[in-house]
Amino acid sequence: MIRINLVVVGKLKEKYWKAALEEYSKRIGKYFNLEIKEVSDYSMSKNEEIIKEQEGKAVIAKLKGKVVLLDIQGELVSSEDIASFIQESSVHGQSELTYIIGGSHGVSEEVKQKADIIISLGRVTYPHQMARIMLLEQIYRAGTILNKESYHK
Amino acid sequence: MIRINLVVVGKLKEKYWKAALEEYSKRIGKYFNLEIKEVSDYSMSKNEEIIKEQEGKAVIAKLKGKVVLLDIQGELVSSEDIASFIQESSVHGQSELTYIIGGSHGVSEEVKQKADIIISLGRVTYPHQMARIMLLEQIYRAGTILNKESYHK
Repeated sequence: MIRINLVVVGKLKEKYWKAALEEYSKRIGKYFNLEIKEVSDYSMSKNEEIIKEQEGKAVIAKLKGKVVLLDIQGELVSSEDIASFIQESSVHGQSELTYIIGGSHGVSEEVKQKADIIISLGRVTYPHQMARIMLLEQIYRAGTILNKESYHK
Repeated sequence: MIRINLVVVGKLKEKYWKAALEEYSKRIGKYFNLEIKEVSDYSMSKNEEIIKEQEGKAVIAKLKGKVVLLDIQGELVSSEDIASFIQESSVHGQSELTYIIGGSHGVSEEVKQKADIIISLGRVTYPHQMARIMLLEQIYRAGTILNKESYHK
């Protein structure tokens, strides 16, 4: 089973995001070996560069396998693209992927350089808590696409 | 206060989407007069064209003011674009907008023709229940942008 890691900055706060995360994690378990790794946010600091540098170091320490960074300015991908990338990673001997969702100020240059691809789910800004659920939904969807199962839109 | 209508097909089922909808509706109330109008889905029918036609008629009956259709193939907009469009609609004498989110098969040609603009939140497919929350979040964000308030990402 392909291992998929999510490295995310900060904690989910709202109950409804937690409930959605639980539901999608359960569903994803059918297809992938999912692990969510939260790193602390440094939002108490006032200096954006220091925040990104500190969060970046913690993120980089957790990367394994192919690295996919989510960024609003990244390559616009479809759900099928996301599924193909997971499949290809597995075919070429990589059975592990790590997705990164940065904090509210984005990620450091160093993190960007560690990414094998930088993808975007659209040009619209979302709260990063919500982005986490959106990505999980896409990983679940990728599982259904790769297994040729129907999934209600 | 600008009136914003959401015309959506089908009901929210999962508890966590309902809780998220309640939260965002409350927050939006500070900026806009929001009304959510649900029309029945015809997903019991097996013919996609009939579904879209029937749902389309019900959607069209509820349109008011400027009409914005969400479609995966639409114009990729940013959160700032969404805010500007709401503001411009108001400046030019239109104080009412209607957003449409179709059902799981998309919308009929007739609905597309009624739209003043067709926008896309990205090239990725989401469940339409989730799209509803994503749009509400963008409407709330537009309120904060137009009122120059800070809003944590």
